[in-house]
Amino acid sequence: MGDYKIAVLPGDGIGIDVTAEAVKVLKAVAALDGGINFEFQEFPWGSQYYLAHGEMMPKDAIDTLAGFNSILLGAVGDPTVPDHVTLWGMLLPIRQRFQQYVNLRPSKLLPGIESPLRGKGVKDIDIVFVRENMEGEYSSVGGRMHQGTAAEVALQTGVFTRYGTERIIRYAFEVAQKRPKKHLTSVTKSNACCFSMVFWDEVFKEVGKDYPDVLTDQYLVDAMAASLILHPEKFDVVVASNMFGDILTDIGSAIMGSMGLGASANIEPTFKYPSMFEPIHGSAPDIMGMGIANPLAAIGSAKMLLEHHGEHNMAELVSKAIEQQVAEQKVLTPDLGGTAKTWEVGDDIVRRILASC
Amino acid sequence: MGDYKIAVLPGDGIGIDVTAEAVKVLKAVAALDGGINFEFQEFPWGSQYYLAHGEMMPKDAIDTLAGFNSILLGAVGDPTVPDHVTLWGMLLPIRQRFQQYVNLRPSKLLPGIESPLRGKGVKDIDIVFVRENMEGEYSSVGGRMHQGTAAEVALQTGVFTRYGTERIIRYAFEVAQKRPKKHLTSVTKSNACCFSMVFWDEVFKEVGKDYPDVLTDQYLVDAMAASLILHPEKFDVVVASNMFGDILTDIGSAIMGSMGLGASANIEPTFKYPSMFEPIHGSAPDIMGMGIANPLAAIGSAKMLLEHHGEHNMAELVSKAIEQQVAEQKVLTPDLGGTAKTWEVGDDIVRRILASC
Ligand SMILES: CC(C)[C@H](C(=O)O)[C@@H](O)C(=O)O
Ligand SMILES: CC(C)[C@H](C(=O)O)[C@@H](O)C(=O)O
Repeated sequence: MGDYKIAVLPGDGIGIDVTAEAVKVLKAVAALDGGINFEFQEFPWGSQYYLAHGEMMPKDAIDTLAGFNSILLGAVGDPTVPDHVTLWGMLLPIRQRFQQYVNLRPSKLLPGIESPLRGKGVKDIDIVFVRENMEGEYSSVGGRMHQGTAAEVALQTGVFTRYGTERIIRYAFEVAQKRPKKHLTSVTKSNACCFSMVFWDEVFKEVGKDYPDVLTDQYLVDAMAASLILHPEKFDVVVASNMFGDILTDIGSAIMGSMGLGASANIEPTFKYPSMFEPIHGSAPDIMGMGIANPLAAIGSAKMLLEHHGEHNMAELVSKAIEQQVAEQKVLTPDLGGTAKTWEVGDDIVRRILASC
Repeated sequence: MGDYKIAVLPGDGIGIDVTAEAVKVLKAVAALDGGINFEFQEFPWGSQYYLAHGEMMPKDAIDTLAGFNSILLGAVGDPTVPDHVTLWGMLLPIRQRFQQYVNLRPSKLLPGIESPLRGKGVKDIDIVFVRENMEGEYSSVGGRMHQGTAAEVALQTGVFTRYGTERIIRYAFEVAQKRPKKHLTSVTKSNACCFSMVFWDEVFKEVGKDYPDVLTDQYLVDAMAASLILHPEKFDVVVASNMFGDILTDIGSAIMGSMGLGASANIEPTFKYPSMFEPIHGSAPDIMGMGIANPLAAIGSAKMLLEHHGEHNMAELVSKAIEQQVAEQKVLTPDLGGTAKTWEVGDDIVRRILASC
C-alpha cells in the first residue's frame, strides 16, 4: 500500500505504443485499490530527442529520475541513430547509475499459447532468468588502434568483479530457494573464457555453500542455448552474465511463443534507487503506431513493478487478467494469431481487472 | 584424386565412438574410388593423456600434425579435467596454430527428421554458418587481480583485428555468392560492445561493397537467437564472431533435430596447414562406449573433409548415403528415435556407399 512516483519513458518505436497500455493498467489497479496511488510523469527521451538535441536524454536526467520510485520503460533503438548511442546514452546509464544489478526475466508458457517448440507444453516451460545487469561483457573498457588501416585492432574487455558476480549469484540462489524445485543453473563458457568465466564458476561454487538446499548445475552457454530448445523442462532458475543472459532471455521469450510476451525487471533490491521495468522486446520501428504491437510484455513488466513494491495482491490480479485473456483467445494481437489492436488488448486487461472487485 | 595423410584424434568420451565410424566411412570411400588413398594415423591425445602426462598432447604435437593433410577430431572434454585446460591445451591451439580461421557449420533439416520447431520443415532450415575461429572473444588476453579477496576483478579481452575480421567476412561473402539465395546475415551486438562489434559492422559494410550481388542484413545476437527459433527460413548464410558463432551453431544443431547431426569444418583455405573436421557436439562422457552416440555428425564432418580436398563426387556420395539412411528411418540411434548402435549406423552408411558403385 503506498504512493508511487513513476517515471514513464516510452522511448522509441512500439515502446510508445505498449507503454501507454502498461500505464492504463496501473491506473486501473489504483482505481481498484484505494491504498495505491500512482503519480506518473512522462519524459520524451530517446532517439527523437537525440535527433533534436544531440543526446538521448538531458544531462540531468539521472538526477531527475532519482526522485522517482520506479521507471517504466518502453524500448529504445531507431535506425537513424547508431545502436551504441541509443544504448549507452540511455538504457545502460540508467541500469548502471541506479545499481539495477538484477535483470529478472521470467519465461513461462501460458495456457492457450502454443510454444514454437514441438510437443512442449505449459508444464515444460517455467524458467526464471536472473541476468547480471551492470558489468561483465557490457563494459566501455576497450578501444581501437590504427583505425582505418590494415593494422587496425579493436579491443573489448569484459569486467567481472567479485562484488558484482557474488551479489547476482546470491540473488539467484535466493530466487531459487523460494521456488518449489529449488534448482539453479549457472551458465558460463569457461573453456573459452579462461579468466572471467572460470572466476564466475569459482564464485558460484563458493556462494552455493550457503544454500545447501538448492540443487545446482552448470552449463556451457552453447549447450544451454541448444538445451533451452530441446529440453526446456530441465530448467528452473538460470543465472548468467550480462551478455549470456541477454541471449538466453531472448530464447526464453521465443519459446514462450512470441517476443511480445517477455517481461522484465531491472532491479535495485535495496530501494535506494528506482528500479526499471521494461519489455524484453525491442522498439520494432517498422510496426510503430500500427496498433499491432503486443502490449502484454509491457503489461507484464508493470506487474513486476507491483511485485517489486510489495503489492502482491494487485500483481496477482494483473497476472490473472493476462492469463485469462490469453486462455480465452479472443483478444489477441497478430503475433499470437489474433486481430486485436494494441489498445484493445490493454482495454481488455483493464476490464478484467476492474471486474474482479 | 589424391593421397591424403589424415591425423585421427578421437579425443574424449563419445569422440572415440564416433570417430571410428568416420574413419570407416572414409575407408569405404577409398575402397570405392581407386584414385583416393588415405593414410590414417591415430593419436591418443586428450583428457586421459592429460591425466597420465600432465598435458593434453605432447609438446611437439603441432609439429607432428603439420605433416598431415587433414585432421579428424572427435571431441574433447572430461569432468576430471578443467574445461579451459582441455580447450586451450588441444582444440584451440590446433585451430589457431594452423590458421583455421573459418569454422563452417551447415544446419540443414534432413527429410525424415522432425525439427523440434513446430511447423518448420525441410524447406525452412538450410543455413550455413560461417564462424570466425581464431580470435575475437576467444582470447587469452586478460587476467585476475586481488585473487580471492573482496576486491577481486577478472578481465577478459576480446581481440578483433582487421586482418581476422576482414578475411572471415570475405570468406562468408564468397560462400553466400555461390548459393542460390545469395543472402548473408551478419550477427553482432554493437549496441553493447561499442568497440569490437561496431568495428565488425564497419568491416562488414566495406567488404560488402565487393559483392554487390549478395543481399545482406544485420542482426543483434539476441534477436538472432530468437529468430533462428521463430523464423529459421529467413536465413541463408550467417557470419558471426567466434563466441556468437559458437552459440548460434549449437542452436543450428538443435533445430536440425539432434545434436548428433551437426558437422563442422575448421578450415585453413590455402592448404598451407592441415584443416580439421569435427562434429559440433561435445564429448558426452556419460554415454561413452554405450553405443548410443550418433556418428552422423562425425561422418558428416568426414564428408566436409572430402569436399575440402576437392573430392566432390565422393562427398556427394556420403551426403546421399546419410540422407537416404535418415529418410528410410530404419537405422537410427536413440536421439533420432531409433534403436541402432553407433557402429550399426556407420556400417549402414558404408554399405550404402559401397552399393553405389
Ligand atoms: C537493447 C540492448 C542493449 C538490451 C541489452 O542487451 O541489454 C536488450 O537487448 C535487452 O535485453 O534489454
Ligand atoms: C569445446 C569448445 C571450446 C568449442 C568452442 O566453443 O569452440 C565447441 O563448443 C565448439 O563449438 O567447437
